[in-house]
Amino acid sequence: MEQTRALVFDVFGTVVDWREGVARELRAFFERHGAGPVDAHAVADAWRKRYQPAMEECRSGRRPFARLDVLHRENLDAVLRETGLDLAAVAAGELDQLNRAWHRLDPWPDAVEGLVRLKKRYIIAPLSNGNVSLLLNMAKRAGLPWDAILGAEVANAYKPRPEAYLRTADILGLQPGELCLVAAHNSDLAAARACGLRTAFVLRPREHGPRQAIDLQAEGPWDVVASDFLDLAARLGC
Amino acid sequence: MEQTRALVFDVFGTVVDWREGVARELRAFFERHGAGPVDAHAVADAWRKRYQPAMEECRSGRRPFARLDVLHRENLDAVLRETGLDLAAVAAGELDQLNRAWHRLDPWPDAVEGLVRLKKRYIIAPLSNGNVSLLLNMAKRAGLPWDAILGAEVANAYKPRPEAYLRTADILGLQPGELCLVAAHNSDLAAARACGLRTAFVLRPREHGPRQAIDLQAEGPWDVVASDFLDLAARLGC
Repeated sequence: MEQTRALVFDVFGTVVDWREGVARELRAFFERHGAGPVDAHAVADAWRKRYQPAMEECRSGRRPFARLDVLHRENLDAVLRETGLDLAAVAAGELDQLNRAWHRLDPWPDAVEGLVRLKKRYIIAPLSNGNVSLLLNMAKRAGLPWDAILGAEVANAYKPRPEAYLRTADILGLQPGELCLVAAHNSDLAAARACGLRTAFVLRPREHGPRQAIDLQAEGPWDVVASDFLDLAARLGC
Repeated sequence: MEQTRALVFDVFGTVVDWREGVARELRAFFERHGAGPVDAHAVADAWRKRYQPAMEECRSGRRPFARLDVLHRENLDAVLRETGLDLAAVAAGELDQLNRAWHRLDPWPDAVEGLVRLKKRYIIAPLSNGNVSLLLNMAKRAGLPWDAILGAEVANAYKPRPEAYLRTADILGLQPGELCLVAAHNSDLAAARACGLRTAFVLRPREHGPRQAIDLQAEGPWDVVASDFLDLAARLGC
């Protein structure tokens, strides 16, 4: 890891707890719209389940790159319709506001302190599929001390396309091997490693709730394996 | 200014003193290469003079967008040749290092404190023709507390093309009127205003040295006119 100059981070699940944050806003929305008892976590999971297929439309070239706010909004409409809600009865502005629940996610308890420590030694930036304004609004609210906001929108390609990793290195003026991806997802790390990046796995065993069945351990030859961001900082000498 | 959500900043001249920083590194370079007495400020000015014509090649479409580090390097080679230096006798790595003098510019004395105050109330980001790694390395070295690194490279267009301003607003998820450009250059402010941005002029009377003849006063109907970043912060209630 000695040649590492920049740590680039997956965000949803790795830095912030998307499931609780999205469920919190969905619950409040359903309470306002009196749609009877709804399992907000199940709706959050259903919303998230449409995430990869929506990006795949762009990755495959069947659709031009569209920022994540746009995909999230299309997916939100679809998921709300599945609950039986009459979308036409809800003001578009309120749906836009709900869609930006992804801008208001809370970090895991160790994230801010860990990033502050890591920032002293490394360039730190998100390498997320979230768009710039989503990541910026999230950082401003939560106090995430990024040096820059990078990721799919700046690279014009969604992970795990190689361009997402390689263009991020190029924009930073660095070789791929001078970047280390920090992620709670083995598949993201595998794609980054194939592009020549260093890799750090951070365990987030509750990302998918109490019955999480994936990403409960490192499943590849990652350069660092850490239990959280404070452990990561310690392992990197920060 | 009440609807302003983000302050976006011109950087060279407005936030940092490019002329002194570049001259400092040129002077050290010429001392190492024993080329006799050279006026480092004159070479810095000559290097800067090639800046607009180089970008104009990209703005006009005669050349695809190329990041500023690339244009600076081409211009550096040309300017050094004009001094009579034998470029072939200098290692390419040393020229690359000298080219990154633009990554190591010092902020004006009021800039960091002013930005820290402005950041509490506004999103703050560069909207510079500098590329991302240039602006990021500069910020990391100087302690500029940007919320994000935006500008020509992210917008894929050099100022004063309208796309540079309008795409920056779009990336931030804001209307043009929710952005305010802060700049020491009347021409930059005029182009931003034509795109619907708010405008703040900050006086930098020594950007071009002791005999500066331009931008010594506000020359348009700018929303704010300030003597430095602390005065700007005070005028914006920060």
